Amino acid sequence: MLNFSFHNPTKIHFGEGQIEAIKKEIPSNARVLVVYGGGSIKNNGIFDQVAAALSEHEWFEFSGIEPNPTYDTLVKALAVIKEHKVDYLLAVGGGSVIDGSKFIAAAALFEGDDPWDIIAKRARVNAALPLGVVLTLPATGSETNAGAVVTRNGNKLPFASKLVRPAFAILDPSVTLTLSDRQVSNGVVDAFVHTVEQYLTYSVNAKVQDRFCEGLLQTLIEDGPKALAADTREDLEVRGNLMWSATMALNGLIGAGVPQDWATHMIGHELTGSYNIDHARTLSVLLPSVLRNRRVNKRDKLLQYAQRVWHITQGDDDARIEQAIVKTEQFFKAMQAPTSLKDVDLGASDIDEILKKLEQHGMTALGEKRDVTLDISREILEAAL
Amino acid sequence: MLNFSFHNPTKIHFGEGQIEAIKKEIPSNARVLVVYGGGSIKNNGIFDQVAAALSEHEWFEFSGIEPNPTYDTLVKALAVIKEHKVDYLLAVGGGSVIDGSKFIAAAALFEGDDPWDIIAKRARVNAALPLGVVLTLPATGSETNAGAVVTRNGNKLPFASKLVRPAFAILDPSVTLTLSDRQVSNGVVDAFVHTVEQYLTYSVNAKVQDRFCEGLLQTLIEDGPKALAADTREDLEVRGNLMWSATMALNGLIGAGVPQDWATHMIGHELTGSYNIDHARTLSVLLPSVLRNRRVNKRDKLLQYAQRVWHITQGDDDARIEQAIVKTEQFFKAMQAPTSLKDVDLGASDIDEILKKLEQHGMTALGEKRDVTLDISREILEAAL
Repeated sequence: MLNFSFHNPTKIHFGEGQIEAIKKEIPSNARVLVVYGGGSIKNNGIFDQVAAALSEHEWFEFSGIEPNPTYDTLVKALAVIKEHKVDYLLAVGGGSVIDGSKFIAAAALFEGDDPWDIIAKRARVNAALPLGVVLTLPATGSETNAGAVVTRNGNKLPFASKLVRPAFAILDPSVTLTLSDRQVSNGVVDAFVHTVEQYLTYSVNAKVQDRFCEGLLQTLIEDGPKALAADTREDLEVRGNLMWSATMALNGLIGAGVPQDWATHMIGHELTGSYNIDHARTLSVLLPSVLRNRRVNKRDKLLQYAQRVWHITQGDDDARIEQAIVKTEQFFKAMQAPTSLKDVDLGASDIDEILKKLEQHGMTALGEKRDVTLDISREILEAAL
Repeated sequence: MLNFSFHNPTKIHFGEGQIEAIKKEIPSNARVLVVYGGGSIKNNGIFDQVAAALSEHEWFEFSGIEPNPTYDTLVKALAVIKEHKVDYLLAVGGGSVIDGSKFIAAAALFEGDDPWDIIAKRARVNAALPLGVVLTLPATGSETNAGAVVTRNGNKLPFASKLVRPAFAILDPSVTLTLSDRQVSNGVVDAFVHTVEQYLTYSVNAKVQDRFCEGLLQTLIEDGPKALAADTREDLEVRGNLMWSATMALNGLIGAGVPQDWATHMIGHELTGSYNIDHARTLSVLLPSVLRNRRVNKRDKLLQYAQRVWHITQGDDDARIEQAIVKTEQFFKAMQAPTSLKDVDLGASDIDEILKKLEQHGMTALGEKRDVTLDISREILEAAL
């Protein structure tokens, strides 16, 4: 195991009916801005539950955060915050709303001239508004971590600060019942690939982390398809297991003390930035190709994955690794997710553009060994056609 | 999965050389009391590392915390705290030193007349000194949780407050290399039984928690005996895996959203209180008997344990459960731990006294279904002879 520091102070309230916990988590004298997306929460009852929980608070609304939240939208919140003297943010949504709220939290108290510097110049975040979360789409883990991704002019860029980590997160699995199949699929695939990015690297004999990863992957494999199947889609136990898996997949725990990859994510971000493809769908397209390309580097862990997650015991090492990757593709297909560039209407002629973007963003040495060069990214993309 | 709230804000610094992180974790103007046990840290270099890390702090010492820390010892620290205007505690030791420091932290700022009321009358803890930890014996999980056990006149009694949860914990596996075999054995058995208490109950289809438990149990089973074997006892990877398992076994995570048992612990506390038997050794004596006695209640989870942890696939249900319990006993024996009352020099004539103590402490309805009456505790003890 590698040395590490781990600190995740977000308080979690998990289960049906927990939205009412907002009431006691946000100081009664706070002036709250409820931040949300396209308004679906007004149709499915979540907004009403939040409003009921905030009945004794002074609160305001800011809506319209889009998937892959853009800088141009987010900065509009700053005027609302100033006008109403807001001092607490409550994000009600999935990863995009939460990520966007994190940027708003930091931008609202940013002392420099241009809040975009937080991302573009990695300007230090010295203060941020406190942030609470009601999670509606389990996927990104953003509800308890310190990171966020913001898009500007087709560039999808990350920032992180412990000051924007949510103070609390409400995880009520029943609110996920109204998600579309596509949203459910995206969430499960995202959590799966988050886990893989921290698991399928090289071994440092971190047995707890390995087994926690394998437990999350097995849970997603077992329960992911159930959330799409007619007879089990309303099953709250299934929804609960998926929600908790997605949070645990990116709260820092399984990645503590182990190498991490993230090549699939970094290449995927360019597919989203340039072609507006759902984040999770870029991951299901790319991951199998990344694993095949990096199978020598990742050999020991791929064999462990084949055995422990997929129970593959027949064939020589190469055959078992290939079987495990095929099983991974079959799982993505069962989740109704694409597994090739063709599936998302991209072709060979798009690869140069993707590589240009990777170069532009400095993504020229990816992966746990920093050896995924642009040439290797090209191989990965070509094999994903 | 059951509804739950989870909050563990302790910051962890894990790995060799991390003791120096104390320097930045404790405010530079703090007046620190270093609390420790019998003085072994002065012989193995840990004290020197702590002293070096505190070279720019004002600090004092309080030593002599015994295993199963007693009220009479702990209250002596209060005079030292008053004399030197101490405002930060640093516990350097195992579960007993940490638990004792938690009580000192609460007692130092207790507003009532008698700090024993914190335990005896469950008096509310409104303030506590901040506490940091350098863990030397991985076992109890006390380094990141909010609970403690204190002994007075042979009565071993618990208290808990979020105000005594350590602000930070240093987990350096290399400091465990000087532990005796008995200490290593105790730590592994304690972590194993903590996990079992939160795992072998009845199923609520909490797949993540179940698999995390199974991962911890498998890690302890694989690496526990290696920490006692001549050729692997110095292996820092082994020590690291055991240390991280013990923390994860009782930091609140695997017990969130699931039923919990703790009958083995509660009966075990009486064996320690009345006969001064090491805490972990009471657990290895009692757990197999508890599992056999409760095998109907725990049937589904025992079958899952047999299959996933011990890979037992032959025989009917009862036979597989019995094999899993036998494997558990064999594991305890491999850890040089006792598995019967006879092994710890107790006999049938002691059972009445143990039951009297259980009754005296209100332990008359134990277990995840509160159905372990005194009569069932008697059955459990008789079967453990």
